[in-house]
Amino acid sequence: MNVFQKDYLMTAGPTPLPPPVSQVMAEPILYHRSPVFIEIYERVLRRLRTVFQTEREVLMFAASGTGAMESAVSNLIAPGDAALVASCGKFGQRWAELCDSYGARTLHLEAQWGERVDPDEVDRALSEASGEVKAVYTTHSETSTGVINDVRAITETAHRHGAVVCVDAVSGLGVVDLPVDEWELDVVVAGSQKALMTPPGLAFSAVSERAHQLAGEARERGAASYYFDWARTLEGQAKQQPDSPFTPAVTLVRALDVALAMIEEETLEGVFARHAVLGRAAREAVKALGLELFGPEDDNANVVTVVKVPEGVEGTAIPKKMRQDYGITIAGGQSQLKGRIIRIAHCGYYGAFDILSTIAALEMTLKELGADVTLGAGVSGAQQVFLEAGIPMAQPVASAP
Amino acid sequence: MNVFQKDYLMTAGPTPLPPPVSQVMAEPILYHRSPVFIEIYERVLRRLRTVFQTEREVLMFAASGTGAMESAVSNLIAPGDAALVASCGKFGQRWAELCDSYGARTLHLEAQWGERVDPDEVDRALSEASGEVKAVYTTHSETSTGVINDVRAITETAHRHGAVVCVDAVSGLGVVDLPVDEWELDVVVAGSQKALMTPPGLAFSAVSERAHQLAGEARERGAASYYFDWARTLEGQAKQQPDSPFTPAVTLVRALDVALAMIEEETLEGVFARHAVLGRAAREAVKALGLELFGPEDDNANVVTVVKVPEGVEGTAIPKKMRQDYGITIAGGQSQLKGRIIRIAHCGYYGAFDILSTIAALEMTLKELGADVTLGAGVSGAQQVFLEAGIPMAQPVASAP
Repeated sequence: MNVFQKDYLMTAGPTPLPPPVSQVMAEPILYHRSPVFIEIYERVLRRLRTVFQTEREVLMFAASGTGAMESAVSNLIAPGDAALVASCGKFGQRWAELCDSYGARTLHLEAQWGERVDPDEVDRALSEASGEVKAVYTTHSETSTGVINDVRAITETAHRHGAVVCVDAVSGLGVVDLPVDEWELDVVVAGSQKALMTPPGLAFSAVSERAHQLAGEARERGAASYYFDWARTLEGQAKQQPDSPFTPAVTLVRALDVALAMIEEETLEGVFARHAVLGRAAREAVKALGLELFGPEDDNANVVTVVKVPEGVEGTAIPKKMRQDYGITIAGGQSQLKGRIIRIAHCGYYGAFDILSTIAALEMTLKELGADVTLGAGVSGAQQVFLEAGIPMAQPVASAP
Repeated sequence: MNVFQKDYLMTAGPTPLPPPVSQVMAEPILYHRSPVFIEIYERVLRRLRTVFQTEREVLMFAASGTGAMESAVSNLIAPGDAALVASCGKFGQRWAELCDSYGARTLHLEAQWGERVDPDEVDRALSEASGEVKAVYTTHSETSTGVINDVRAITETAHRHGAVVCVDAVSGLGVVDLPVDEWELDVVVAGSQKALMTPPGLAFSAVSERAHQLAGEARERGAASYYFDWARTLEGQAKQQPDSPFTPAVTLVRALDVALAMIEEETLEGVFARHAVLGRAAREAVKALGLELFGPEDDNANVVTVVKVPEGVEGTAIPKKMRQDYGITIAGGQSQLKGRIIRIAHCGYYGAFDILSTIAALEMTLKELGADVTLGAGVSGAQQVFLEAGIPMAQPVASAP
């Protein structure tokens, strides 16, 4: 008998789907110009504004999150324009690759992996560039290291230098507070497959009026975009009966509608509070187990908990063994962090017992790999947090749109 | 009692999904780097080669079909490069828009809507451009008019002038024979949501070695692409354990796997034969009803049957009434053809009784709109074709991968 036969997905790739989200995709497909789909589409666009905390139209593309990142470069940058990338990990580097691909003069400010972007460094870099930088590209939640950046401070700095800010919030949106309008974030991009509890394949860009204007000017200077063109997408979405310029991924839009209804029911504040407890529980578990967290101490690091591999343990063996023996999928480190860290994601459809199961599996795995751990020590650390939190720990309630 | 309460989707937008395709999407989501997903991904890539009739790697993107069209422009065209667009309808025009967006010197050869692209005209245009044109962009099945182009002749012409050919086969692939390798088609793009019986959100580009080479040269001249970059995508797919450079739309990939298994079981020849019978039946029904087909007489026009709106009938009222009264969704004409034609799609998961139901509804609709039609006349025209065809008329058999 295999008592570990259930699968638990604890990676910040595609995250688990609530059953009603999965099930709506099994319904007969809708024609994207039918009244019933237009109604869903309209509702999804409205609900996205709630999650982004914005009055703006949130542009939706059929693509991975990287497609929305590309839109922030291809719409704003003409060949030869200066762009500043302020990165602190693998996904931040993607901004630099994108800027290079689109012919920008890319200034790349790279923080150490595991550290935050320093707004003062951004300030210095922008001063040295003496006002030439049109756009600053940075990351809200850096999934490769677990770090949450001070997006507000980076934005204020960029604005002082006359630059707009584009924020990759793919893994952080709907986990950690990111009030787009209040903080005057110019461009915020995200994807469907993390905290939005929907399969991968939808990408979003919340674009300020100023960024739209700059995009118009960049076009005059030779910026090229079509599929990810903001103006074309906005034009379609702003119609009386909103319309996508290209066939939308109707099945995923429908799934997203159900997921966003669940977020609406839990409330955005409730979602943030739940993630805060999950994150704290994971961190306390790690400490109670005698392991070390990777990255700065941070109450906001609630997207993915990143743990240093203890000395004497083969790092890449941990995720492998947890998946093979226990059916629990976590991630290891990427690139320079390969074998040095493990990453436990809890952004999206996660509850207390996902954390407890994962920590329990981690304890058993480490023990079997020869580490000196006390079974149950991490689990009890997390339990303590859940008891103290005193909020309902049940999974979010499933409900129809 | 409403006896017309079932919904029939007869548009070449998203087409109906076989139940096993719908249902696989309700299963728990997979991590894209898990062995079980990599196995599915590998199998889908192999099965795509069968449908494209090619030995090449078929590049897969999380996007609508237009994303793959964009890839054929952004990878091949540097600003200032000459491109010839040979169009005959709305989707052909999209090539011209794309070329313009990417800074091409676009020569646009526009055939009348409802006519085919004339290979001799392509020849003349390429002669006049005296070898400057790097790529010819054209359409296999022009969904807006129902026309199937002579892609083979256009390709031979382009090759004589040293240009590569990029074919939009979004609605025609898997309906009408298009042997990519045999005809030496350089780039063929398609989408998941038509004959491939999968929701919209996956796009494909089958790219020849020569086109890959030209893309490398275009990059040197300043061509820009990232999300739709061929080299990056090929590199990931060609790995021992194939990988997508960006999070793939795992749910849709899984759906496609089931759909491609069904095509494999029916065989590609069987699929073409079925569509040929469906197309002939639709055309004969239209004629038997005393209506006129739009576009040239063509045994290959099996993607969408396009009918001229009879005199005295308000054209836009037909699709509206068919949907509202009978639950059958067909499409009207777009742009200059608005109100002048109706379009009945039968590319994908369609069987004989979909055609019969649609024709029956069309007869009732036209009668109610005041046209002089004999109820059952069209239906019997189609029945005659089905009886003569003598092939099994059952829907393709559902089966697991």
